Amino acid sequence: MTDYVYNLLKQHHSVRKFNPNDIPEETIKELIEAGQNASTSSYLQTYSIIGINDPTIKEQLKEVSGQPYVVENGYLLVFVMDYYRHATINDDKKVDMSVSFESAEGLLVGAIDVALVAQNIAVTAEDKGYGMVYLGSLRNDVARVKDILGLPEHTFPLFGMALGEPADDENGEPKPRLPLEHIFHQNKYNSDKERQRQEIEAFDQTVSEYYRNRTNGERSETWSDQIAGFMSSKQRLEMLEQLNKSGFIKQ
Amino acid sequence: MTDYVYNLLKQHHSVRKFNPNDIPEETIKELIEAGQNASTSSYLQTYSIIGINDPTIKEQLKEVSGQPYVVENGYLLVFVMDYYRHATINDDKKVDMSVSFESAEGLLVGAIDVALVAQNIAVTAEDKGYGMVYLGSLRNDVARVKDILGLPEHTFPLFGMALGEPADDENGEPKPRLPLEHIFHQNKYNSDKERQRQEIEAFDQTVSEYYRNRTNGERSETWSDQIAGFMSSKQRLEMLEQLNKSGFIKQ
Repeated sequence: MTDYVYNLLKQHHSVRKFNPNDIPEETIKELIEAGQNASTSSYLQTYSIIGINDPTIKEQLKEVSGQPYVVENGYLLVFVMDYYRHATINDDKKVDMSVSFESAEGLLVGAIDVALVAQNIAVTAEDKGYGMVYLGSLRNDVARVKDILGLPEHTFPLFGMALGEPADDENGEPKPRLPLEHIFHQNKYNSDKERQRQEIEAFDQTVSEYYRNRTNGERSETWSDQIAGFMSSKQRLEMLEQLNKSGFIKQ
Repeated sequence: MTDYVYNLLKQHHSVRKFNPNDIPEETIKELIEAGQNASTSSYLQTYSIIGINDPTIKEQLKEVSGQPYVVENGYLLVFVMDYYRHATINDDKKVDMSVSFESAEGLLVGAIDVALVAQNIAVTAEDKGYGMVYLGSLRNDVARVKDILGLPEHTFPLFGMALGEPADDENGEPKPRLPLEHIFHQNKYNSDKERQRQEIEAFDQTVSEYYRNRTNGERSETWSDQIAGFMSSKQRLEMLEQLNKSGFIKQ
């Protein structure tokens, strides 16, 4: 019974600026191992991880992401939802498992499995003193990422992770989260809109103050303004088509 | 730079038999807090968690899941993908964000966000000496779970988690995982089928031996036989319809 992990996770913040030092291959292997030890739905293990240190490939992925830390990091991982090996088993055993990986259920299982592995890796890396940031921005152009990484059918790149020693002038800090009582419900979901509005309003003030403090008053937007701005811009509308093309949500 | 978390995660195994002692509310709050500190895509925080200690509700959820440890545990959590609060913001700000939560991209963001939170909770709980098991089986009947928990539109129950003190005769141990080189690729995906077949065959022997040892020879199935059996049975085929009904993957 310790508070070790609790205290570690409370310090988490995304790191977007790294020292140029590579992470040793041995450490990367430990991170992957720790990732694999996450729970996996029905033992399916529907994931692959691409470990990238080739600067040319990093540059290509940066073109998709637009973020400099896709290149400037200690190591880059890409997390792939993967039923390719299951498709091999399907062919060899002459069974019909296609519905399991082409259904919406197969997508949920796959995406969740991948995320559990990734989060184990994130936590293990932070415990070893590294910083990390998730790269959902690789989904800006899934077709291109598949091409760059040579991903076959029944696989799908969900996100990346940049890892490395935090730069000396990296000054991140934990970002406020929605109040616990807003996201945590006792026994039943509380869908009272008025209560929800009050909680969002309170959180808006917290976030506004957080930005004000961090930027010497230059930024002061609220959470709900951010959400409204971000979510009303059309994002990655081709995702369903891309999933279909890779063999997902076909039935 | 420590190996603390690495060593903790290497010991992970799902626990399905708990002592009847409740987990204190204070501890539950710490777990939720630790969960919230996981990275969240574009700060969206697309999750809610239902904490369940009401025995009647546990019984109802057990009817969906079929698993005794949905009732017999120290605490039960249900993880909900949640755009309900974003829909409130949508209405109040008079913007149109619907495409962001009704698209396949919105589903990926939501499911991944939820899983990151859940895995932080799992790791923190294990550090505190508790055991846990994920309950994908709540997806056996999503409509019923929504009804039991009073889940509104733009929410979707993804999975549960049973937590508690491992029972004294709980004798779980880490289960073998696919060889690291099978799931980890350097710079590009290696889609060589012959290599893959050899690795699966080797892993089949590992798994068969694992079962033989644990059951005094009663079970000895291979991984690929398990996969073929499980995945060729039709599982949760109504998931896309249920997602659509809850406002997901509509465009």
